Amino acid sequence: MPDKAFQDFYPEDFSHCYGCGKSNEHGHHLKSYWDGETTVARFTPRHYHTGGVPGNVYGGLIASLLDCHGAASAAAAACKAEGREMGGAPPMRFVTASLKVDYLRPTPIDAELEVRGEIVEVKARKVTVSLSLTAHGEVCARGHMIAVRLPDAAAKKH
Amino acid sequence: MPDKAFQDFYPEDFSHCYGCGKSNEHGHHLKSYWDGETTVARFTPRHYHTGGVPGNVYGGLIASLLDCHGAASAAAAACKAEGREMGGAPPMRFVTASLKVDYLRPTPIDAELEVRGEIVEVKARKVTVSLSLTAHGEVCARGHMIAVRLPDAAAKKH
Repeated sequence: MPDKAFQDFYPEDFSHCYGCGKSNEHGHHLKSYWDGETTVARFTPRHYHTGGVPGNVYGGLIASLLDCHGAASAAAAACKAEGREMGGAPPMRFVTASLKVDYLRPTPIDAELEVRGEIVEVKARKVTVSLSLTAHGEVCARGHMIAVRLPDAAAKKH
Repeated sequence: MPDKAFQDFYPEDFSHCYGCGKSNEHGHHLKSYWDGETTVARFTPRHYHTGGVPGNVYGGLIASLLDCHGAASAAAAACKAEGREMGGAPPMRFVTASLKVDYLRPTPIDAELEVRGEIVEVKARKVTVSLSLTAHGEVCARGHMIAVRLPDAAAKKH
């Protein structure tokens, strides 16, 4: 796995996301990487990330991990499709247009969670990503994201 | 608005959800209420709930607010449909089967966010809820949730 995650290439002003920004002191610091043709991120929940049912993770955390990993995967896939390095100018940055999460089974809190992204389609301004979240070898949630590219002007402004 | 939120009726063991449990020391403490035929919850983001784009809320928080409010609304709607008070035994508790979030526009971080739920359908074990999130009078996100009822045995066990 390379040293630098997708999120580590975001410009400083874009690096404060609670879910994955390296400069957010309070956040999750999710880090996403290529693993062959798919993307992967890993996250170990804290004890207070519990859901309503004891021993399981709260649903919002799962959505958050899929969301950050999906948007980062979209940016990485768009760079790859254009033959660009991540971190070049103007910044390549995607935001979520829609995210659907199917909660297949309870996600245990005492596990390292593995989030994987599969790039379904890359268009000029839109990337579709299929996502999964696995704990103890079992897929607990699946996601489907449509991410849209921020206009260069908006990305440059910050 | 009544004093007690839907979440305040959850049994103690179900009250530790990071998103809406009254007993989670670290969490959001989202509280949901009836407002006529719809349900409502309000949440003011903290400065560190920023997303990748400065000045906006991170997507995972939006999904989390819709998720907790939707599941609580499902439980309240099921109680209402059965003519039960919330807080009776066995506990009425729903978990999310699926949640789709459409992010319509950036959600500003300097606003009180209003989450509303509309009960679309109540079946014996499944409730469908349509959700919206509004800031400064503009709808920033819409959600669609299918929540399923925990079996009484599972709810009693805790």
